Amino acid sequence: MSRGFVSLVGAGPGDPELLTLRAVARLREADLVLYDALAGREALGLAPQARWFYVGKRARRRSIVQESIERLMIRAALRGERVVRLKCGDPFVLGRGGEEALALARAGVAYEVVPGVTSAVAAPALAGIPVTHRGLSTAFVVVSGHAEAAYEPLLGTLGAGTATIVVLMGLANRAKVAALLLARGWPARTPAAVVLDASHASAASWTGTLAGLGGCALPDEQPESAGVLVIGEVVSLAAAIAAVPQERRSAPAA
Amino acid sequence: MSRGFVSLVGAGPGDPELLTLRAVARLREADLVLYDALAGREALGLAPQARWFYVGKRARRRSIVQESIERLMIRAALRGERVVRLKCGDPFVLGRGGEEALALARAGVAYEVVPGVTSAVAAPALAGIPVTHRGLSTAFVVVSGHAEAAYEPLLGTLGAGTATIVVLMGLANRAKVAALLLARGWPARTPAAVVLDASHASAASWTGTLAGLGGCALPDEQPESAGVLVIGEVVSLAAAIAAVPQERRSAPAA
Repeated sequence: MSRGFVSLVGAGPGDPELLTLRAVARLREADLVLYDALAGREALGLAPQARWFYVGKRARRRSIVQESIERLMIRAALRGERVVRLKCGDPFVLGRGGEEALALARAGVAYEVVPGVTSAVAAPALAGIPVTHRGLSTAFVVVSGHAEAAYEPLLGTLGAGTATIVVLMGLANRAKVAALLLARGWPARTPAAVVLDASHASAASWTGTLAGLGGCALPDEQPESAGVLVIGEVVSLAAAIAAVPQERRSAPAA
Repeated sequence: MSRGFVSLVGAGPGDPELLTLRAVARLREADLVLYDALAGREALGLAPQARWFYVGKRARRRSIVQESIERLMIRAALRGERVVRLKCGDPFVLGRGGEEALALARAGVAYEVVPGVTSAVAAPALAGIPVTHRGLSTAFVVVSGHAEAAYEPLLGTLGAGTATIVVLMGLANRAKVAALLLARGWPARTPAAVVLDASHASAASWTGTLAGLGGCALPDEQPESAGVLVIGEVVSLAAAIAAVPQERRSAPAA
């Protein structure tokens, strides 16, 4: 019987310090790491002994198809290897982790899911925005902004102000998302933010209102830039929460 | 000028292996750790040099009031101490982390937020439930089930099937939550689950339908048990995703 094993690992938003201890342990034992662009480069040093194989979608070349990723994992595991499938954020948040888990289960391959820090919560947090806050919001929604079919069923019916909205993979559709919410009755003055490259040195954010979200100019925007949209009253806290001394984003002095 | 510093740290769902590297680093440097019941005990060994102070709400004695927690953090930081405020899950998901951040900012205390693995995603995942899944759900909502005023505005208006619903702190109100959704038009046969003590040795889960959620019997239920409700088609994947060899929940063989 095979000793191969696959770990579907959440890499968090990108900063390797936001990897979990279990993620690091699995990387250290790995023979093969299959990584997405966002989730890989900075974690490379944690598994120098493993073969690293890029399977993401953010390079110029086309991504390899999902079935190929699943076949790669299964074949390696059946050879007896320990495979880490390193996925951005959390493996089960808009990352096709469920499909990969089902493929492994169907193939009879032993596997586990290692939850990670999801960008849906961490990107706003690192920009000073709590997705919930007493008196402002007791709920948040996370939705894919990749295509209208993905976000319209929820956002086209969501009552104004009933939850903080977090849109992942929706940077290119921000004007459409804003228009949809305005048409649904969300007030134009609802605070809104765009958080770019959260947890990376290149992190940046824009804050304004829902009325301004569609047309906001962002620095160095790439079609596939990693950006998180946040819409709701909690965005108004960013100025106060981020207004802390410089040390905030660096380690405390030794 | 004070060198004191406060880290608002997400502890994840409870298993110390789901702490982030940054959380562990902050614990190792801490002089004082203020912890909630769920987030503390198992992480104690990571900061044996620190004073540990319990400020949670899950013991027999009453919790200390929020203002006292904030005052403790601020006083310690102004004395020059490094304080870790260790919070269950992620500090900004229904944990009053935003209030603590604002209190620190107002007091001029340097601080940071260290995002954690939120139980809203990890508890379902560890029970084999991906909160999103192609063809089943491209969105999820996370809402406090603590009181009707917290969940009614969203759940009382949310279109049937438009998102996976995750309810935190809603174990005691599961019958009311289910009734609300049924009245809103959610089909009685919608798959539903309760995940208890996710990531702990005592982890357990119940799966059934929305119709059965209100009356489901749970093992050893305490009024304040840590339980996560999950409602939506994705729950139907649990049987297949969790149907993997025994090794899944343990470490791969050395």
